Amino acid sequence: MNTFGNLFKVSIFGESHGTSVGIIIDGSPAGVPLHEDDLLPDLKRRQSGKTGTTPRREADLPQIISGTFNGLTTGAPITIVFRNSNTRSRDYAEFTEIPRPGHADFTALKKYGGFSDYRGGGHFSGRLTLGLVSAGVLAKKLVAPIEISARLIEVYGEQDIQAAVQRAVEQEDSIGGIIECTATNVPVGLGEPFFGSVESQLAHMAFSIPAVKGIEFGTGFRAATMTGSEHNDNLLSPDGKTETNHAGGINGGISNGNDIVFRVVVKPTSSTSQPQRTLNLKTGKLTTLKIKGRHDTCIALRVPVILEAATAIVLADLCMLEQRIPRVWRDR
Amino acid sequence: MNTFGNLFKVSIFGESHGTSVGIIIDGSPAGVPLHEDDLLPDLKRRQSGKTGTTPRREADLPQIISGTFNGLTTGAPITIVFRNSNTRSRDYAEFTEIPRPGHADFTALKKYGGFSDYRGGGHFSGRLTLGLVSAGVLAKKLVAPIEISARLIEVYGEQDIQAAVQRAVEQEDSIGGIIECTATNVPVGLGEPFFGSVESQLAHMAFSIPAVKGIEFGTGFRAATMTGSEHNDNLLSPDGKTETNHAGGINGGISNGNDIVFRVVVKPTSSTSQPQRTLNLKTGKLTTLKIKGRHDTCIALRVPVILEAATAIVLADLCMLEQRIPRVWRDR
Amino acid sequence: MNTFGNLFKVSIFGESHGTSVGIIIDGSPAGVPLHEDDLLPDLKRRQSGKTGTTPRREADLPQIISGTFNGLTTGAPITIVFRNSNTRSRDYAEFTEIPRPGHADFTALKKYGGFSDYRGGGHFSGRLTLGLVSAGVLAKKLVAPIEISARLIEVYGEQDIQAAVQRAVEQEDSIGGIIECTATNVPVGLGEPFFGSVESQLAHMAFSIPAVKGIEFGTGFRAATMTGSEHNDNLLSPDGKTETNHAGGINGGISNGNDIVFRVVVKPTSSTSQPQRTLNLKTGKLTTLKIKGRHDTCIALRVPVILEAATAIVLADLCMLEQRIPRVWRDR
Amino acid sequence: MNTFGNLFKVSIFGESHGTSVGIIIDGSPAGVPLHEDDLLPDLKRRQSGKTGTTPRREADLPQIISGTFNGLTTGAPITIVFRNSNTRSRDYAEFTEIPRPGHADFTALKKYGGFSDYRGGGHFSGRLTLGLVSAGVLAKKLVAPIEISARLIEVYGEQDIQAAVQRAVEQEDSIGGIIECTATNVPVGLGEPFFGSVESQLAHMAFSIPAVKGIEFGTGFRAATMTGSEHNDNLLSPDGKTETNHAGGINGGISNGNDIVFRVVVKPTSSTSQPQRTLNLKTGKLTTLKIKGRHDTCIALRVPVILEAATAIVLADLCMLEQRIPRVWRDR
Repeated sequence: MNTFGNLFKVSIFGESHGTSVGIIIDGSPAGVPLHEDDLLPDLKRRQSGKTGTTPRREADLPQIISGTFNGLTTGAPITIVFRNSNTRSRDYAEFTEIPRPGHADFTALKKYGGFSDYRGGGHFSGRLTLGLVSAGVLAKKLVAPIEISARLIEVYGEQDIQAAVQRAVEQEDSIGGIIECTATNVPVGLGEPFFGSVESQLAHMAFSIPAVKGIEFGTGFRAATMTGSEHNDNLLSPDGKTETNHAGGINGGISNGNDIVFRVVVKPTSSTSQPQRTLNLKTGKLTTLKIKGRHDTCIALRVPVILEAATAIVLADLCMLEQRIPRVWRDR
Repeated sequence: MNTFGNLFKVSIFGESHGTSVGIIIDGSPAGVPLHEDDLLPDLKRRQSGKTGTTPRREADLPQIISGTFNGLTTGAPITIVFRNSNTRSRDYAEFTEIPRPGHADFTALKKYGGFSDYRGGGHFSGRLTLGLVSAGVLAKKLVAPIEISARLIEVYGEQDIQAAVQRAVEQEDSIGGIIECTATNVPVGLGEPFFGSVESQLAHMAFSIPAVKGIEFGTGFRAATMTGSEHNDNLLSPDGKTETNHAGGINGGISNGNDIVFRVVVKPTSSTSQPQRTLNLKTGKLTTLKIKGRHDTCIALRVPVILEAATAIVLADLCMLEQRIPRVWRDR
Repeated sequence: MNTFGNLFKVSIFGESHGTSVGIIIDGSPAGVPLHEDDLLPDLKRRQSGKTGTTPRREADLPQIISGTFNGLTTGAPITIVFRNSNTRSRDYAEFTEIPRPGHADFTALKKYGGFSDYRGGGHFSGRLTLGLVSAGVLAKKLVAPIEISARLIEVYGEQDIQAAVQRAVEQEDSIGGIIECTATNVPVGLGEPFFGSVESQLAHMAFSIPAVKGIEFGTGFRAATMTGSEHNDNLLSPDGKTETNHAGGINGGISNGNDIVFRVVVKPTSSTSQPQRTLNLKTGKLTTLKIKGRHDTCIALRVPVILEAATAIVLADLCMLEQRIPRVWRDR
Repeated sequence: MNTFGNLFKVSIFGESHGTSVGIIIDGSPAGVPLHEDDLLPDLKRRQSGKTGTTPRREADLPQIISGTFNGLTTGAPITIVFRNSNTRSRDYAEFTEIPRPGHADFTALKKYGGFSDYRGGGHFSGRLTLGLVSAGVLAKKLVAPIEISARLIEVYGEQDIQAAVQRAVEQEDSIGGIIECTATNVPVGLGEPFFGSVESQLAHMAFSIPAVKGIEFGTGFRAATMTGSEHNDNLLSPDGKTETNHAGGINGGISNGNDIVFRVVVKPTSSTSQPQRTLNLKTGKLTTLKIKGRHDTCIALRVPVILEAATAIVLADLCMLEQRIPRVWRDR
């Protein structure tokens, strides 16, 4: 259940306050340049530190412990590990008795019979996305010339993101946002009808990112207010380019040569400094919880690079299924 | 790529104007009552015939050709076949030269090198959902006491569905809509963090339904305009019931004991009687296409039962992963 | 559990005395010629009728009900169905109470809680291999120029097969045999270390054939009596050809350019006319069973073409993983 | 390709002379006691050091870097890492030009385009089995009361193992052997007909162990010399016990309640101190190679514990499919 992909497979592991988090990438071609330093720019984009993100800072230094040799992938599984360091586990013990609203505290407790690592969200932590971002760096190399770019287009209903975040910081509450992701230079023919559709694969992966609660392709939900003659994209050229792109670059589950465009909604972080009502499972009484500890005001600020990685991982897999990525890289 | 599921697996096959369409269901418990007649009510809900749906009428009579014995499942794969009859294939030949805007004509042509069966959409046809609906009937039995109900809540931006559809029929254009699906009596603990999240699985499956272009859970995209203290659902009781259900019944990817609620958008059918511009791939010239033949004004009218089936199939799989469905049914 | 393969996937279904048996092949390239008539020669090789095989004769006429169009594969799943006709189900009812030694009667009864279709072996029947043989015909086309050939090299410890079979027929007992399979023109590089090894994949598939109880590659079990300097195959040429072929064409799980050679043992058919002791599960008493009905004296006679098919299916999958089979056939 | 299993999944990674080797186990129940110390006894059985095994000694100390908390599994993926230390990589550089007979040097070179890590066999190394043995320790706990025991029953055609090994050491050549594995207390009903057969799964896994070249169940290849009335095992009791066990505990792919018994052949280690002929790929000329470095005279001595682990991993997966292992361990 912690593995995704058909030919380009990623398997994530780790806990927020355990020894480490990481990822195995199985199925990469041999011969692709991959150094730990290559991973740093995207890892840095994911990091906290800006206004509206948690004061917990980790070095986030990746170690590639298998699958490369002389700075090139070997064709064997690539394992990337991040050691955890800056952990304050005493903050979390009480949430096994008094689950935080909106968190996985309650569901994890019930599902794993009380044995899950509750510290810092354990295996549910957003820290697991470090591995995804790392795999994304490799995937982005593989899918070239496809380029993937995601950006936060709205928070708390506003397009003036900085202002909205600043106000939320002052009000000590968290806020949600919408991220748009675009893949350009996409060839015609990725994906399959039905279960292998590009939408199915991308959505599956996007909902693996904590806090994502919706996804829409092209005009998305607005399509419900359109007629067919408005929504249909008129074909203009033999390479598939259309006049509009209401379909978000996908027809019948298959990429049509236009940009793949989709948006996801990121809910406001569950952790907020506001007092909240919840149940004390031990006493059986309702109580008010005020969460101390460190958290993100607007986690959506950190999600774009994760969404790019998720997209790159899916597209790498789809490109491999179409034999668009060679098994040995220099053949390219 | 035409198979979905971990333990309750469905594999779809067939073409709209070929011999038949159908499904194999692998992984069902033995001993579950399953007659062909059981499938008819949901198959009837999927059928056309109402205002706003295509005049093509098929008998849609299922044949169970493997996996049952004396009216009970045997534990072996269940194969259900629908023979096609009412086909008018001459309507479709030209679309290999002049792809219809919004259809899979162009992507299928390119992906399969001109070898795909283009008649009536071939393997891309919505007719393939006959199999899904059939598998859904079995899945609904398996997941009891979970109940699943989907309904069309909006078409063309209106809640007065009948009026909107009638107007679209008169204007000879197609229209889209939004369907809401709710699963009640869901136990706590279905799903997994990350790739196995309930959202990931349901979204993967929902986007397998032709014309679906977006999905959102709970408050969905509206979460982008909320604060954490608004969005968080306060826990009220030890069985997981919360004061609100902004999360749509899922925290950390795992069902939390509240109703699972999500909405999908169905785009307007690509087929419309309105003239549309497109490219003649043979001459290389832009042309105007007016699609004759039979099509649905508002395909969204027929999708609720398909979405229910898709949901039931996913939940059956998740329940099996949690050992909530026995391998032999009388053990229940 | 009834599906095998990564990219070239086969899913089998059906029961010996039910409506039909069949197979779905998912992942075939588009554009491969495939008629029902193409399947007949290998299906005929599998048929009974010769001395030592069962007098039950079926027409074994395949119907391709999806996935081809104008005699060519479309890229969509290919479904092939065989209707059962010549069934005598009354022969089998008693075996649910008095399990036949060596059969799956007892294990099926226990596993499926009495709900499995016991007639003629139900889903356990060797008739299911009709689908495998059919898929093998397509797979053999795909893997060209690889050629696959299997033959019975020994029955009942004798190389004079005809004589041994004749004697067994006279003695009214069944006998086992050994089949050797050779694949020639195999490229270097198929397979993977560990779980994806050529041996792992071929063995997995070979043991799916009823009655196979052992497999060995190259010198096989005789390797236990050899030294390394005897067993190692000396490399002679840059294309991988070696002086000997003790490795059976596979090093480190990967094909080395020599013939892939392996042998399987087929146990004597469990059905024999000899009286046998077993338990009456209803009375709890030991009893003597004399099986009437029709059965094969030497089922091994019919297995070579099935083993070829199994091998072709595995090699087609491995060739696809190495991008040696194009997604559209005319690209070849 | 480096992952095996349906519900109890293992993913191996690493290189012999790289940073580390290891395994991820996904799908374990929560609440199972698992300390690093628990792994040591089986890891020690795998170690070299006895007569006939390589003088390369590694500490083989496992680090569990995810998936446990307070000495119990959490339900999240368990990652176990072994750091490599005692490496002499200079020994291996020449084999990329002059492939060793019987090794994966040639196949790895061709498959991965020269990019694989050739040091000490890289990802092909028997060192990868450290992970399997570790996962086996957990799997053995899960499948209780099933007990699994493997032992070397023959080397170089002799049952006096010590003498045969001693002589081979003196002759400076390697030798092969046969290992028998027995699982006792196996419930009726594990496995499936066809692709999910117990034989298919065990064989798939067994051939993942380097140097294994054959496997046979029950009487195995000797079945080819038997009649059905000899080979059939007469049923004696309602729990499935039979008079003989020619079937090796499996009928129709499904465990029948008797011991599962199978044998594998382990070829002589390819590395031998004897001079061997091979090709110099650079010069294109035949040459004689005398391998220096450290190697096992009889690698079969170290395989029993690996085969036990492989068997336990498969049986754990099969038991999970039958819901015989709870999702939370204390439920047991």
